[in-house]
Amino acid sequence: MTLYRSVADFRPDQVDQILDRAAQIKSGEAPIASTHQTIVGLAFLQASLRTRTGFAAAAIRLGATPIEVLGLRASDASMPESVESTIRILAGYTDIVVARVDQPLVVPDSVKVPVLSGGDGGPAAEHPSQALIDLFALSQLPVPISQQTIAMCGDLRMRAARSLLRLLTERRPHRLVFITDPTLREGLEWPSELNKLIEYRPLDDIADVDALYVVGIPHGAIHEEGRARLRVRTDHLESMPAHAGVFSPLPLIDEMEREAFNHPRVRIFDQSDDGLFVRAAILEFLLDVPERHFAEDHRL
Amino acid sequence: MTLYRSVADFRPDQVDQILDRAAQIKSGEAPIASTHQTIVGLAFLQASLRTRTGFAAAAIRLGATPIEVLGLRASDASMPESVESTIRILAGYTDIVVARVDQPLVVPDSVKVPVLSGGDGGPAAEHPSQALIDLFALSQLPVPISQQTIAMCGDLRMRAARSLLRLLTERRPHRLVFITDPTLREGLEWPSELNKLIEYRPLDDIADVDALYVVGIPHGAIHEEGRARLRVRTDHLESMPAHAGVFSPLPLIDEMEREAFNHPRVRIFDQSDDGLFVRAAILEFLLDVPERHFAEDHRL
Amino acid sequence: MTLYRSVADFRPDQVDQILDRAAQIKSGEAPIASTHQTIVGLAFLQASLRTRTGFAAAAIRLGATPIEVLGLRASDASMPESVESTIRILAGYTDIVVARVDQPLVVPDSVKVPVLSGGDGGPAAEHPSQALIDLFALSQLPVPISQQTIAMCGDLRMRAARSLLRLLTERRPHRLVFITDPTLREGLEWPSELNKLIEYRPLDDIADVDALYVVGIPHGAIHEEGRARLRVRTDHLESMPAHAGVFSPLPLIDEMEREAFNHPRVRIFDQSDDGLFVRAAILEFLLDVPERHFAEDHRL
Repeated sequence: MTLYRSVADFRPDQVDQILDRAAQIKSGEAPIASTHQTIVGLAFLQASLRTRTGFAAAAIRLGATPIEVLGLRASDASMPESVESTIRILAGYTDIVVARVDQPLVVPDSVKVPVLSGGDGGPAAEHPSQALIDLFALSQLPVPISQQTIAMCGDLRMRAARSLLRLLTERRPHRLVFITDPTLREGLEWPSELNKLIEYRPLDDIADVDALYVVGIPHGAIHEEGRARLRVRTDHLESMPAHAGVFSPLPLIDEMEREAFNHPRVRIFDQSDDGLFVRAAILEFLLDVPERHFAEDHRL
Repeated sequence: MTLYRSVADFRPDQVDQILDRAAQIKSGEAPIASTHQTIVGLAFLQASLRTRTGFAAAAIRLGATPIEVLGLRASDASMPESVESTIRILAGYTDIVVARVDQPLVVPDSVKVPVLSGGDGGPAAEHPSQALIDLFALSQLPVPISQQTIAMCGDLRMRAARSLLRLLTERRPHRLVFITDPTLREGLEWPSELNKLIEYRPLDDIADVDALYVVGIPHGAIHEEGRARLRVRTDHLESMPAHAGVFSPLPLIDEMEREAFNHPRVRIFDQSDDGLFVRAAILEFLLDVPERHFAEDHRL
Repeated sequence: MTLYRSVADFRPDQVDQILDRAAQIKSGEAPIASTHQTIVGLAFLQASLRTRTGFAAAAIRLGATPIEVLGLRASDASMPESVESTIRILAGYTDIVVARVDQPLVVPDSVKVPVLSGGDGGPAAEHPSQALIDLFALSQLPVPISQQTIAMCGDLRMRAARSLLRLLTERRPHRLVFITDPTLREGLEWPSELNKLIEYRPLDDIADVDALYVVGIPHGAIHEEGRARLRVRTDHLESMPAHAGVFSPLPLIDEMEREAFNHPRVRIFDQSDDGLFVRAAILEFLLDVPERHFAEDHRL
């Protein structure tokens, strides 16, 4: 069993490999065919739309079939089963498990298949597949990531933001602009080598920003006044360069003004659509499909 | 993107084509094979048994694979995502979306795949796939629709009834008998050319009726006395011709007496079973499978 | 239609056939391929993890595709549909239905496909697929079942236990040890020929036991003192022979001490994993796949 809980569980060259394959799949190259009998277990014990349906679709595009467990359910005779036990049972029936949980993702030793976090909880919570999707979205801009000024706006402690920050440490963009409130980065740690790239700015100072990444702000995380200061408006988007893009790992509710959603800078749905290719590349990588095919060829 | 929200979004010749294909598929002709990788997104934000599992099964019989979103779910950090956004996200991962919603079905421009209503809400609510299934059920009777006396009993404002009325305007049966209460057709409009076909009658005057379509009555839509007057009993069924059939688009609770369910006139389960063929024909039509296969042949 | 509600609905030679196929499938022999278009309906109107996901996975391993109905859902206009009607509708779209319900499983005559109980309710409640899995687990021990001393600990009235007892009547183990409380077998009946095999013992008298089957105890079924007396601890496991195994049909909450879960005697996850092979063999048997393939060959 290998657990992929953090982006750090992927080597930098593996990240490259996954992004390259995602680009190939996007450009029309067929993902390496799996068989209908290959099963992708989706243990989404916390609710999700993009990640769950995105992995289900990616599994099917690969030729595999998903099975879902949504939420923890009590059996008739007992309390709800534990997260660990639920994942262990599902792992016994499947070839890979993607799990979303609200606690640190831990997997029993007896699990024999790869387990990928679809977002976990706790103080070191991460969301590695989302961060790979976000990195892919950044890579679609006409400026290479190494030359991009990337602004992150909102609650920087969100798990997708934490994972993306770790990936960006490796990729080293030109500049990282944090648009946030001190309470929304309380306790957040990042690699010290990022410090010289980081600037703190208000939301109306993004004229040089290539990518605005709207992290999202949980309800109740900050008072309405602070929340309003971090709300993306059309005039902010207008101030950005023409080639710039606005991305988000989450459904935005009031973190962006309703009228701003249709602004040409906003690439959130493209980012979501491309997520399918990234997830297909991730599953292909984790299922190690080529090797399997080789084994099957020999069996014949 | 094409949105099929109303039966009016299908041309009459397309309705014919779908019903003909449904009959062919019922008679054993294989639906045109899709591939396992074709994904039918089922966004059932309102509960459903027949429509949801029927489209899932139809997708699989075609060779495709369904993905479901049941209800609107909040992500961890935010309010439930909007209906429009949910459909847009799912559409990005799939080849077609069938959506059931409790508001008028509207789809963002950026959706690139066909979207079919599985029942929507609002004052012009429709349920086009159910109406096609109901029309198919009527076509299974030994009398052609153009010669049928069709009685509709219950709340005529229900979305399936509204869609069926629109289809029948085109098909022009011999007579339309409305068995209802003034409060259960309040505000309902229908094409004026239907007026000369319509008669109002009580439920005990159906000796000449070829098809009794039990629309259903929402809880609380009418007082119990009125409800009782519209409750189908065995003696009503006995009064119908031997070849007549009783149909319904819905699970009936108290709109029909329990003992009446097993009466030989009642074809509700046959109607439901045949729904699989109609839904397969609808998906085949919307996915435009032949064209796709042609494209794939050329790619080889 | 054939209803498989009880283990008694399988002939003894059919039980043998299923267990033999499960062993073959476990040893790597491919299950007889079904087609993607074959649909296994899963009507899990009561919650379930193992049985639901296990049958879904087994269906996919066979090459078929599952469709799920989880819980009874009300349609927009009416009360929740009845269990019988829900199963009937789903059966019309599928090739087989596996149903979990909280009442005696009864199926309308008009159902034309096999229906298998995934656990039902009422005074004669059974859980035949679980009992076949449990029998398979017992058969994996190095001592043949006919020579095993099998202890059953907990509430013997649970449906899986009732089904297993019926299967064991046929298999005739060396001895059956009941570790329970008089209140937890109140009203339970078993075939009289079992009486000479049965002994009642406390949990600390299992040094000769080959298989300890922890039945589970519903919340509130017994006072905490009695519950504690039936709680499996590491020292109990240590007293068992080295080859012995501990099994359970359920997620255990407090019926076994937390520390005991990782004890080498505990085979609960192996039992669960092997459940996939048994369920594949059951589906293969019920779908009668070879015959179907034959029919299809002739059709070509």
